[in-house]
Amino acid sequence: MNFTLTTLGSASALPTCDRYPSAHVINIRGRLFLIDCGEGCQIQLRRAGISFLKIEAIFVTHLHGDHIFGIYGLLSTMALMGRSASLTIYAPFMFSSILKHFNEMFADGVKFEIKHIVLSGKSKNLIYSTRNFEIYSFGLNHRIDTFGFLFKEKEPQRNIHKWLIERDKLTLREIALLKNGENVIRENGEVLENEYYTYLPFTPRSYAHCSDTAPFEGEADLVKGVSLLYHEATFMDDLASMAKATCHSTTYQAAKVARDANVGKLIVGHYSSRYSDLDKIIKEVREIFPNSELSKEGKVFEIPLNKKEQ
Amino acid sequence: MNFTLTTLGSASALPTCDRYPSAHVINIRGRLFLIDCGEGCQIQLRRAGISFLKIEAIFVTHLHGDHIFGIYGLLSTMALMGRSASLTIYAPFMFSSILKHFNEMFADGVKFEIKHIVLSGKSKNLIYSTRNFEIYSFGLNHRIDTFGFLFKEKEPQRNIHKWLIERDKLTLREIALLKNGENVIRENGEVLENEYYTYLPFTPRSYAHCSDTAPFEGEADLVKGVSLLYHEATFMDDLASMAKATCHSTTYQAAKVARDANVGKLIVGHYSSRYSDLDKIIKEVREIFPNSELSKEGKVFEIPLNKKEQ
Repeated sequence: MNFTLTTLGSASALPTCDRYPSAHVINIRGRLFLIDCGEGCQIQLRRAGISFLKIEAIFVTHLHGDHIFGIYGLLSTMALMGRSASLTIYAPFMFSSILKHFNEMFADGVKFEIKHIVLSGKSKNLIYSTRNFEIYSFGLNHRIDTFGFLFKEKEPQRNIHKWLIERDKLTLREIALLKNGENVIRENGEVLENEYYTYLPFTPRSYAHCSDTAPFEGEADLVKGVSLLYHEATFMDDLASMAKATCHSTTYQAAKVARDANVGKLIVGHYSSRYSDLDKIIKEVREIFPNSELSKEGKVFEIPLNKKEQ
Repeated sequence: MNFTLTTLGSASALPTCDRYPSAHVINIRGRLFLIDCGEGCQIQLRRAGISFLKIEAIFVTHLHGDHIFGIYGLLSTMALMGRSASLTIYAPFMFSSILKHFNEMFADGVKFEIKHIVLSGKSKNLIYSTRNFEIYSFGLNHRIDTFGFLFKEKEPQRNIHKWLIERDKLTLREIALLKNGENVIRENGEVLENEYYTYLPFTPRSYAHCSDTAPFEGEADLVKGVSLLYHEATFMDDLASMAKATCHSTTYQAAKVARDANVGKLIVGHYSSRYSDLDKIIKEVREIFPNSELSKEGKVFEIPLNKKEQ
């Protein structure tokens, strides 16, 4: 029941000696998804001990080089390692040109299917659904088409308080109905209220990824109440005008989204190469949203499972 | 009067946690040239403290991904850093497709000219010439069009032994003729033999780069007598059949080229990811050519200047 975010790259456009361009891995219940694929992503995956072959899908926020230049190497290496499972890449429309270029020039040994699903729209779109979780895309506010992603566990089947099963001698049929979220009306007219008899075994968890974006009307609503929010914070507050000019966010702006959306925890990243001391960044972020952390190459952030008692 | 090779990447197709794909920098008298540009090249340049903006030209051996996937990021970063000087890229014909792709998708902020000079031919071709040195390309023996490079200092102007200038009261005209390599005939019929009066101030140095290649007839002739030879040694001798199948060289094969060409020193690299212990590799190489070293990320190999005494 893992749900983790691993940072592979925390740099923005210019990498530094120890900060790689954007790439993150989401592990949700053992299923692996890559968000963005900056240059060096494949080396960072190795260092993090994450199998290239287990990545089910790649979600590309936008087509600026620092978010995509690692794709050529990653696809080539997957081929060299004998990947056969198909790979789906959710990316903006123009990614088709990148894939065409790759296929024409470098796809000699590629034996797996690469599917490109085109992202579009500003509002929240369901793009991936399994029994246990869903993934949505939504529009961000950057210089080119850019998308955020929301990973959300589905509400689990309700559990029934064991002591009530015994006390009220629930039948199998009654148990099935209650687990499905329904009330039960017994032959004698007695009503078994679902809310009294059942509980959610855990609170569904969620993760939202916002990179790269200037703040915009409705942003907090899109990530409302998520357990963990990654939000870019390319600049500190004194460079707010530069953030505005390049359609990025500052520390304060990222923190305000987290505060307004009432998220569980905030992770910031995508730091401008001008900052060598990141402590100053997190200090500013925490002034507005205390439960915040810095992303850093190789760091794993776990979204804990909030189990309910029986 | 520097002449150095810096290894940025010593891996072959699959990078490892600490080995990057192929990239090397030649510094010849303060002028910088990049040979190949594997993924992560720009981060490795930073780590080596080499300025992106000072790279005059890039020499691309061939268009397998592990030798070229860093070009997108490097060009983008040069643009972000405000490069204005034109950049010449010597590469096989199909590089034009890579450049076209880059220009269409990622060249928004590029303000410098990128020239592509097409490499061709099997024999030695002069592709670059300055007052002090020349660069040649030559064909290698790989699965696709692949080129080696030879960097060669020109023979310097001859110096005149100072004690002879005084003893024989040489005139300015006589000095100029002798420096030009000519003999001088005085009015009285006396002949001043150039070889007696002059000497080369230093022995011209040279560097040859052979990656990736299976051994071939005439290879040693192409790199005859160079001061420093880089030669790929992807496999150890027990995997000679795999080297043959993939058109690569083994340790022994690389060392034999160095021995047959009577080079000053051999550097091997492009190691298969299966080798974690490189000591075994250099041991095999040295059995045949003792003055050999392993290339390694960040390592600088200097070609010493062999100054002649006056």
